Amino acid sequence: MSGQDQHKKFEEKTISSEPIFQGKIISLQVDTVTLPNGGTATREIVKHPGAVGVLALLGDKMIVVEQYRKPLEKSQVEIPAGKLDPGEDPLQAAIRELEEETGYRSSSLKHVCSFYTSPGFADEILHLYVAEELTKGEANPDDDEFLDIEAITLEEAQRYISDQKISDAKTILAVYAWQLYRLTGQIGHS
Amino acid sequence: MSGQDQHKKFEEKTISSEPIFQGKIISLQVDTVTLPNGGTATREIVKHPGAVGVLALLGDKMIVVEQYRKPLEKSQVEIPAGKLDPGEDPLQAAIRELEEETGYRSSSLKHVCSFYTSPGFADEILHLYVAEELTKGEANPDDDEFLDIEAITLEEAQRYISDQKISDAKTILAVYAWQLYRLTGQIGHS
Repeated sequence: MSGQDQHKKFEEKTISSEPIFQGKIISLQVDTVTLPNGGTATREIVKHPGAVGVLALLGDKMIVVEQYRKPLEKSQVEIPAGKLDPGEDPLQAAIRELEEETGYRSSSLKHVCSFYTSPGFADEILHLYVAEELTKGEANPDDDEFLDIEAITLEEAQRYISDQKISDAKTILAVYAWQLYRLTGQIGHS
Repeated sequence: MSGQDQHKKFEEKTISSEPIFQGKIISLQVDTVTLPNGGTATREIVKHPGAVGVLALLGDKMIVVEQYRKPLEKSQVEIPAGKLDPGEDPLQAAIRELEEETGYRSSSLKHVCSFYTSPGFADEILHLYVAEELTKGEANPDDDEFLDIEAITLEEAQRYISDQKISDAKTILAVYAWQLYRLTGQIGHS
């Protein structure tokens, strides 16, 4: 198969698509599809505008924010992150979210990797960057966003993972990438 | 604050919850909440039964499956993974999904970490395991599941990440954990 066709292996062609919900952040649709064996199935699909996250390194520490996550009914420590504005470039979004949430600016952002958070039911993609050479300005979170800022070492981050104070995919992935950066001098796959 | 209260920092109390959709896999609700400053906001929340993924190591290779991901409209290479059945123990689910999707059985599964895939809008948690000492049996995928099985080296996995053939959170996280395992002899935070 050609490179184009490779991406369509086991393709599920859409027979019909039923819009269920259009929210402020996500929308939901149910697609009826044809399977490779000719059968049919339904697929529940959440559409999301995409997001960015930043591994922001300040000396031997990373900047994290603690905030309440309503879907989990608990507060969590995470890397600075946020949704893309419509049409926004991911790198610009990363610079914006880092400054809004933490007050830090960086002239040195590098792409680490981009990943789909939950490809079974959602199209959300998150672009992860590493930021170094940080300078401190003024934080300016959204009106409905309440958070604490902290700087933690790699060892503290690993303990937070053990204690489930850090327990989301992007932040654990960022901590692993940081540990690999320490060990190999390399970060990312761009 | 006590350990209990720590998890409730910046708590958003539910004023009302509107059920929107109840599907085969996910459900959707919109909660109206009180913010820490007394204001109100809405939260769009997807409920998911939880999932497992397995970093299955066969000598110097990992077992991956290629399948079509309808939300992304393309096929992707991922670690073996699947949803929890109602009431199912995550370790048992990991053993089951590994065998169903790949035919491999392992007597040595170890918990690596558990993470929320997208805590801003979903409660999905994924439990990641590493499986070694694999023995080959018969694959038995679900009726609506079509996939290819492959064994790839760490270097191939890293190239797949660069080429975006691997591009989901759990698989990139598993590859990073595997590289750290190689470098440090340690895996996971249990």
